[in-house]
Amino acid sequence: MIYKRQNKNKININPIQAGGILTQDAKKTLIEWGDGYSVCDIWYSGKIDKIENPQIRKFIDEALPKFLGSDIVRIIGGAREGICAIMRAVTKPGDTILIDENKHYTTVLAAEKNDLKVIEVPNSGHPQYKIDVKDYEKLIKKHKPALILLTYPDGNYGNMPDAKKLGEIVSKYNIPYLLNAAYSAGRLPVSLSAINADFIVTSGHKSMASSEPIGILGFRKKWKDILFKKSSFYPDKEIEFLGHYQKGAPMMTLMASFPYVVKRVKNWEEQVEKARWFSAEMENLGFKQLGEKPHNHDLLFFESPQLYKISQKHKDGRFFLYKELKKNGIYGIKPGLTKYFKLSTFAASKQDLQKILKTFEEILRK
Amino acid sequence: MIYKRQNKNKININPIQAGGILTQDAKKTLIEWGDGYSVCDIWYSGKIDKIENPQIRKFIDEALPKFLGSDIVRIIGGAREGICAIMRAVTKPGDTILIDENKHYTTVLAAEKNDLKVIEVPNSGHPQYKIDVKDYEKLIKKHKPALILLTYPDGNYGNMPDAKKLGEIVSKYNIPYLLNAAYSAGRLPVSLSAINADFIVTSGHKSMASSEPIGILGFRKKWKDILFKKSSFYPDKEIEFLGHYQKGAPMMTLMASFPYVVKRVKNWEEQVEKARWFSAEMENLGFKQLGEKPHNHDLLFFESPQLYKISQKHKDGRFFLYKELKKNGIYGIKPGLTKYFKLSTFAASKQDLQKILKTFEEILRK
Repeated sequence: MIYKRQNKNKININPIQAGGILTQDAKKTLIEWGDGYSVCDIWYSGKIDKIENPQIRKFIDEALPKFLGSDIVRIIGGAREGICAIMRAVTKPGDTILIDENKHYTTVLAAEKNDLKVIEVPNSGHPQYKIDVKDYEKLIKKHKPALILLTYPDGNYGNMPDAKKLGEIVSKYNIPYLLNAAYSAGRLPVSLSAINADFIVTSGHKSMASSEPIGILGFRKKWKDILFKKSSFYPDKEIEFLGHYQKGAPMMTLMASFPYVVKRVKNWEEQVEKARWFSAEMENLGFKQLGEKPHNHDLLFFESPQLYKISQKHKDGRFFLYKELKKNGIYGIKPGLTKYFKLSTFAASKQDLQKILKTFEEILRK
Repeated sequence: MIYKRQNKNKININPIQAGGILTQDAKKTLIEWGDGYSVCDIWYSGKIDKIENPQIRKFIDEALPKFLGSDIVRIIGGAREGICAIMRAVTKPGDTILIDENKHYTTVLAAEKNDLKVIEVPNSGHPQYKIDVKDYEKLIKKHKPALILLTYPDGNYGNMPDAKKLGEIVSKYNIPYLLNAAYSAGRLPVSLSAINADFIVTSGHKSMASSEPIGILGFRKKWKDILFKKSSFYPDKEIEFLGHYQKGAPMMTLMASFPYVVKRVKNWEEQVEKARWFSAEMENLGFKQLGEKPHNHDLLFFESPQLYKISQKHKDGRFFLYKELKKNGIYGIKPGLTKYFKLSTFAASKQDLQKILKTFEEILRK
């Protein structure tokens, strides 16, 4: 049975999709490596990260550590799996960890899985919901957390807290610092060493133009034996991910897109400019952008009581917005939302965004 | 950067690849759904398993449970992740579990991750390495294990223990019974309810013609709340897999190949016949097949002292076999092996296998 995708060649402003759209090279690579265990065609040792053909070893040992400013990287299923593994490695059940209120929900699930108490650094509330990293310090003193986590940026408002300043603060306390870069690494330059963090987790399918599921866990080498304890029975195998390395099509698309991703992070300022311009235009239409202003990321959150008002009378109810946008070849705002919604300007060109603005204008006029 | 695959259109006898080769439909589906978060094009709720377009919900709620004889299924990263999750759910640290000596190494890693003691039911040793499931009973009585696991078949010898008889034995003791069907479900008919097991784990990329990583965890409904405890903070989200459902291209290729997989398991007897014929022909050439005889699976393990002898004098050393086979368009025996090797007859036609036999014959003659 062949499954076709409906939303081909449409304008995509879906926040969870915009950074994970495959490059042309990745598409061509994908079809080569689709079979299960494809990268094991020529496989000498039991170690996926030592495969030389295709050149996985070099990618993992050299290219990715350089890109993320980390000593070592592991390819994993996604950012959440990395967060959970780090928590397991550096905490004991019952420990307290300190995270930001804007965290992804999976941070809390990972803490629950590891029986950890969670203390949140609150955001500034409506309308900007900002995290001031200076607020970590008093909570560090009070709670002596076993781990500190910062979401950079969060997936709701796209707020970019000062990760580097938090690195300076944390360095005084000898507490491991984990940066959740699922929505940053692959879109903008992020360096573990520049930020002075211990761990970084990234998402290939969220921000590195890769097929899911794939992510990267980067870390300082001092954590290697703690994170990746070897089996007592299979001295070659690491326990945490059960001897598993993410590979196959996700791995090969990550590699195929990588040169393009390296290039695109250099153009991040243009992306920010585009997001700011779009936000301003949306505000001109009467929508209110929540989160940081001026904004520093392509993830944008809008409040739009006018659309909510329309939805209450419209024959399609709360799905009217989705349908109107669809009619105009635009998708990515969650069906059913009107009063609040988020979107990303990352994958859309300025021309696409102009079309979106025009569509919103027409919706409001009708 | 486009990465091409060298081993296209060659005869593939790689045991870890033979059951995971994509169908034509899966290839066409793969390219549609390669983008990160592709299945979230039209996404109303936060639940991937409720997506109706593409029709993921029906596949998970109806087609797969019927195929595996289970009440409920979850789509996961692979068999090992399922084993680890089940251990976590039904045991406490320090508990003892009972497994077969032929287990996959990841079973032991999962036990280590969960701080479990492992007792093994020994196999019969050289040359058949058979597991007699009757041997579980005395060890059940002695160790009172918290979980019983059977590998069906193992990935080394392709031995098929009597899973149904073990179900009868275990049912007397009220101990959960987990069947590792990574190399069976998708190749041959396997039914959790017929075997009277509690849990089954399968691998899409090993045996269901899917892009990796993907597997299925099937279980009786009484285990649902224990396996998939909800978060205290996000009542909709399950803790074990951190709210994650395997999706994207692996999911869509699993769905695309599924009608073909349903059909192919019905032809399992032909596969067994082909394996037995090939094994007999190899023995005629002087190789010795280890594992069960007559054999009941396409995974075959051979002992071949003659090839080892050649390798000691050959200019390519222990890599000579790999190179000779490669020259003849055959791959899948691990480079460097000569004295013992495993292969699978699953993906190769009888004509392909004839070519392999002829190649071996020539290698021995030279």
